[in-house]
Amino acid sequence: MSTVNIGVLGLGTVGSGTVNVLARNAQEITRRTGRKIKVTHAAARDLSIARECDTTDIQLTTDPFAVVRDADVEIIVELIGGTTLALQLVMEAIEAGKHVVTANKALIACHGNEIFKAASQRGVMVAFEAAVAGGIPIIKVMREALAGNKIEWLAGIINGTGNFILTEMRDKGRDFNDVLEDAQRLGYAEADPAFDIEGIDAAHKLTILSSIAFGIPLQFSKAYTEGLTNITQEDVRYAEELGYRIKHLGISRRTAQGIELRVHPALVPERRLLANVDGVMNAVVVKGDAVGPTLYYGAGAGADPTASAVVGDIVDVVRALGSQEAQVPYLAFQPDALSDFPILDMGLVETAYYLRMQVSDQPGVLASISKVLADQHISIEALIQKEPEEGCDRVPLIMLTHCVQERRMEKALQEIEELADIDGKITRIRVESLG
Amino acid sequence: MSTVNIGVLGLGTVGSGTVNVLARNAQEITRRTGRKIKVTHAAARDLSIARECDTTDIQLTTDPFAVVRDADVEIIVELIGGTTLALQLVMEAIEAGKHVVTANKALIACHGNEIFKAASQRGVMVAFEAAVAGGIPIIKVMREALAGNKIEWLAGIINGTGNFILTEMRDKGRDFNDVLEDAQRLGYAEADPAFDIEGIDAAHKLTILSSIAFGIPLQFSKAYTEGLTNITQEDVRYAEELGYRIKHLGISRRTAQGIELRVHPALVPERRLLANVDGVMNAVVVKGDAVGPTLYYGAGAGADPTASAVVGDIVDVVRALGSQEAQVPYLAFQPDALSDFPILDMGLVETAYYLRMQVSDQPGVLASISKVLADQHISIEALIQKEPEEGCDRVPLIMLTHCVQERRMEKALQEIEELADIDGKITRIRVESLG
Repeated sequence: MSTVNIGVLGLGTVGSGTVNVLARNAQEITRRTGRKIKVTHAAARDLSIARECDTTDIQLTTDPFAVVRDADVEIIVELIGGTTLALQLVMEAIEAGKHVVTANKALIACHGNEIFKAASQRGVMVAFEAAVAGGIPIIKVMREALAGNKIEWLAGIINGTGNFILTEMRDKGRDFNDVLEDAQRLGYAEADPAFDIEGIDAAHKLTILSSIAFGIPLQFSKAYTEGLTNITQEDVRYAEELGYRIKHLGISRRTAQGIELRVHPALVPERRLLANVDGVMNAVVVKGDAVGPTLYYGAGAGADPTASAVVGDIVDVVRALGSQEAQVPYLAFQPDALSDFPILDMGLVETAYYLRMQVSDQPGVLASISKVLADQHISIEALIQKEPEEGCDRVPLIMLTHCVQERRMEKALQEIEELADIDGKITRIRVESLG
Repeated sequence: MSTVNIGVLGLGTVGSGTVNVLARNAQEITRRTGRKIKVTHAAARDLSIARECDTTDIQLTTDPFAVVRDADVEIIVELIGGTTLALQLVMEAIEAGKHVVTANKALIACHGNEIFKAASQRGVMVAFEAAVAGGIPIIKVMREALAGNKIEWLAGIINGTGNFILTEMRDKGRDFNDVLEDAQRLGYAEADPAFDIEGIDAAHKLTILSSIAFGIPLQFSKAYTEGLTNITQEDVRYAEELGYRIKHLGISRRTAQGIELRVHPALVPERRLLANVDGVMNAVVVKGDAVGPTLYYGAGAGADPTASAVVGDIVDVVRALGSQEAQVPYLAFQPDALSDFPILDMGLVETAYYLRMQVSDQPGVLASISKVLADQHISIEALIQKEPEEGCDRVPLIMLTHCVQERRMEKALQEIEELADIDGKITRIRVESLG
C-alpha cells in the first residue's frame, strides 16, 4: 500500500487539529481510501513553542516555501490564513503541480478566480470545504449532491461568534457588548472582533457559496455587508413577541434581475429550524428547484470540526489522484460555463421589514407614518404600540411590513425620521420568511 | 460535447421526476458536467397510460431487459422497486459493464453485498443516494465528506409517513388511526402501510446508513424493528409535559461490544433540532469524533426530491466516467476492509425509558414498583402521577428512567406487570437524549 505525503502549512489550531485527526483516525481513513495518508512535512512560524499535536514523525521548518517545493509532498494543506503569504504559497504549490487543500475563506473569496484559473491550467485540485461553515460539508453538497438542481436561494448562519452573541442576548437577556466581552474571553471572538460582528467573515463565506450555487465568478467586493452591532435587547424581545428570532444571516438568491448577495441581521420565524440553531453552531438552508428546502447543521469552527473538513478534502483528493478527468469543477460549474449574471444592487432587493421607532404619544402620529409608508407602497403586516412609561411622553412603535424594495424603504424611513413626532433614528431589520 | 445516454427502468413517480429534472435543468447540468446527459431509453410496464413526463425523444419499451442490453446506454437508472426483477436487472446491467443508479432501498439493504461484489469485479459504479432519505445527500456526506471521522452514532427520522402521523398527533391532538387514514388519502402512505408504520422501510434505510458509517456488510436481517402503532395520544401529551417529542427513529451506534441497529419510537428532548423536524420531512444526525454532531434535513420522498438525488448520482457517475480508480467505495470503505464487528443484540442495548402504567390509587404501590426497578439497578429520573378521575380507582403513573440495559428493563417490566396493583400492559418507549 503506497503512502500519500502531506505538507501542512501552519500548525495553529486547525493545523494541529488536522495532524491529530489524520493520526488518530489513520486506520479508519486507510480502510476508506486504501491508502496511507501521512503528514511528512510542516511549516510553523516558531518551532520553539509547544504544539497541540504530535510532530515526532514530521519534518518541521519555519520556511513554508520549503514544504511547497519538497518533491516528496503531493498535497499542500494551507492553514496559515491571510491573503498575502498564503496566496504566494498556494500559487507556487499549484505551479509545482501539487494539489492544494485550504481552509482560507478570505483567500478563496478574494483570490479564488485567479487561483482556480492557474489550477485548471496545471490540472491540479484545489479543495476548500473547510473555508465555509467549518465541519458542515456545504460545498460538497452544493457542488456535487445538488448538481441536478437549479438552486433558487440559500441562507445561512455562517459565523459562530455572531450566533453565540445573539443566542446569549435572547436566552439570558444580556446586552450586546457584555456578551461580546464574554465571547472574546472564551476565545470565540478575536481581540479585534470586526471580522465576525461586522459580517466580513460571513461575507467571505457567502461569496464562495453564491458562486457555487449559481455558477458565477467570486465577487466579494459586491457583497452587501451589515453587522449586528446595532441589535439591542429590545429588538430581541420585540422579535420574540412577534414570533421571530433575530439571526445574522448570509443570503444569496437568484432573481430575474440578478443575484442577491447580502449579509445582515434578520428576523426569522421561530418555527423554522434555522431560527433554532443556537450558540456557536452554524447551519445553511439551500433551496433547490427539485429537492426543495434542505438544511445542513454543524460546528462552524474549532480545531476538530474544521479538521474534519480538511481531512474530507484530503480524502477526496487522494481518491481522485491520477484521474484528472474525474475532477469536480472548483466552483461546481465548468470554468468556461461561469455566467456574467450580475449581482443585484441592494436597493433593488425586496424583503419585509421590522421597524422600531420612538414616537410622541399623540393622536395623528400613526396616521402620518402610515401615509409615508403608503406613498411608497409599503403595507403594514403587524404593529405593536406600547403604553408610555410613567412620566414619559414617548412610546416605542414596532411594525412588521410586507415585502418592498429596499430603496423604497430607505426613502420612507428618511421621510419618517424627518417627522416632528419621531425621535432619533429608526431601527430597521429585514425579515426573512425563508418559505 | 459528447452526450451520455441514460436508460431509465420504471416511469412511475420517481422515474417521471427524474426525466423531468434532467430535461428541465439540462442547461444547468451541462454547465456543471461539461456533458449532455440524455434519457434515450426507458422501460415501463404499460405504455398506454399517460405519463407525468415528456417521453417524446425517449425510446420506450415494456421490456426492461432490452434497455439494460442496449449498447447505446451507458448508465442504467433502476426505479421499478422490489427485489426480484430489480435484482435481475441490476445484476445484468453490471454484467454488461454499465453503471447503475438506483433508488431501491430494499434492494440495496437486502442484496447490496452481492451487487457490490459483482460491480467491483466488473469495475462499474453503483450509486444509491436516493435510496435513503430522498433528497438529503446523507450517503455522499458520510461516504465522502466525513471520511476523516470515526463515526460514533447516527440517528434519523427516515420515514416521512411515520413522521407525518406523529406530527399530526401532536399538533392536532388526533388519534393514530385517524391520521393514518388521512395519510393514505393524501398518498403519503400505501394502501398497505406496514412498510412505513412498522418500521421496515426505515430499517432498510438504516441498514444502509449503518454499513456506510461503520464499514460493516449490510445486515438487514439483524436490524431490530419496532413500529409506531402503539403510540397513543396520551403518550404524546405526557412526553410533551416532560419536555420531549415522540419521533420514530432509526439509530445506529458503535459500542465496545458491537453496533446497535434499531428502529423504534423514541422520546427526544424538545430543544434538539431533530425533535423539531415535522410533517413528511426527514433528517439525520451524524456524530463524528472530529466534526461533532451534524444534521442533514430535507424532503425524504416525492418525485422531485428523490429525482434530485438520482440526478446527483448520475452527475457523480458522469464526472467519474473513464476514471475507474477515482471510485468512491460503494459502502464508503474498501471492499476488503469491511469489518466483521457484530451487530449488538437488542437485549444488550442501553437506553433510558419512558414508562406508562395504570396503577391502583393505593399507598405502597409506588414502593413495590420502585423495589422491582431497584432490584434491576434501574433508577428513576422523573415521575408523574395524576389524580384519579372521578369515580375511578386507577391512576396513570408515568416514569422516566436513567439508562439501563434492555434485558434488565424487560425483566423489570415483566415483574411489575405481575404485581396485583398494575392493570394490563406497561407502555415503554425508549428515550434518546442524542447528546
